[in-house]
Amino acid sequence: MLKLYYAPGSCALASHIALAEAGADYTTEKLDFKANQQNSPDYLKLNPKGRVPTLVTDRGILTETPAMLAFIAQSFPQAKLAPLDDAFAFAEVQAFNSYLCATVHVAHAHKQRGARWATEETTFADMKRMVPKTVGACFALIERNMLKGPWVMGEQYTICDPYLYTLATWLEGDSVDIATLPKVADHRNRMAERPAVQKVLAEQSA
Amino acid sequence: MLKLYYAPGSCALASHIALAEAGADYTTEKLDFKANQQNSPDYLKLNPKGRVPTLVTDRGILTETPAMLAFIAQSFPQAKLAPLDDAFAFAEVQAFNSYLCATVHVAHAHKQRGARWATEETTFADMKRMVPKTVGACFALIERNMLKGPWVMGEQYTICDPYLYTLATWLEGDSVDIATLPKVADHRNRMAERPAVQKVLAEQSA
Repeated sequence: MLKLYYAPGSCALASHIALAEAGADYTTEKLDFKANQQNSPDYLKLNPKGRVPTLVTDRGILTETPAMLAFIAQSFPQAKLAPLDDAFAFAEVQAFNSYLCATVHVAHAHKQRGARWATEETTFADMKRMVPKTVGACFALIERNMLKGPWVMGEQYTICDPYLYTLATWLEGDSVDIATLPKVADHRNRMAERPAVQKVLAEQSA
Repeated sequence: MLKLYYAPGSCALASHIALAEAGADYTTEKLDFKANQQNSPDYLKLNPKGRVPTLVTDRGILTETPAMLAFIAQSFPQAKLAPLDDAFAFAEVQAFNSYLCATVHVAHAHKQRGARWATEETTFADMKRMVPKTVGACFALIERNMLKGPWVMGEQYTICDPYLYTLATWLEGDSVDIATLPKVADHRNRMAERPAVQKVLAEQSA
């Protein structure tokens, strides 16, 4: 049995959707970031990074969205969530997810998480001002060069799709005009129609 | 034939070492960051992100260090650079590399690459001041919770090792005292003794 620790509105949504798409047997536990539960002693014992998501497995815990998504795809091969028998195609999936993790999510985090990298209020304000531009540039690259359509990798739905969807739900909050990103907008709409996505969103808002 | 685009001192060193460890047939091309070659029209046609590393393969290009490292491990299975037949162990490898990519490298990048996320000189100075603390905290977590020893994943050398080594060569530049990190220091010394590492360092400084 797998157990996913998540916070609503966080990138843990990607792994949550992937678990549902895979037909995995899983439970979840919601953390309240406003109450700083991700830094409680019990949670830090589980995941010393003090972040979400954390996936508890029979073998131990896993962290980091790209790693968890690939783990879910490999653990439930019948769900065909990644091209597991093709090292190059699998690397393309991983490169896309790594870009979301290390560049797009990081650009977004400068809006509210500036204290990770600096201390001054003026710095936080400067960082915040640039978020529409940096996140916008990331998504423009995705729109132009990376999203093959209809799904990220083309005809086959993969673990890239819930991850892109998750970060695309942040666009309005980051003041990026989704009307300039028709393929991303279309992808987000098509994701929102999937039963697994609707089930997970209902679960997270319960 | 594989071709790796790199810049000396960059994270591309990790993939370069992995190619050498794998016994891959590869060539390299050095980019001069001071001349801004990573943003030349020709290079941007190859890799529109304007970053290194880029790996050119028969099937197309790959970017993002964690994806390239896993690709090298999967393409040269006889080199045993990752636990390819164990989804959980492979996910642990990937989680480690994802942390290096999205947290440790990003913390380090705030020293010289502040213009990615802000515009003011006072902001860059604030970011720079915090780098020893943020990079130090990342490596303290690696020392305490992640580096099993003697190699990152224990007895078996994996694609985590050249990546950790690469980022650990930045510690002095980031004013992190490696004497506080005995396991990381020991790992770095042991890496420096490997023939593949010596070969690659000679290649990059030629």
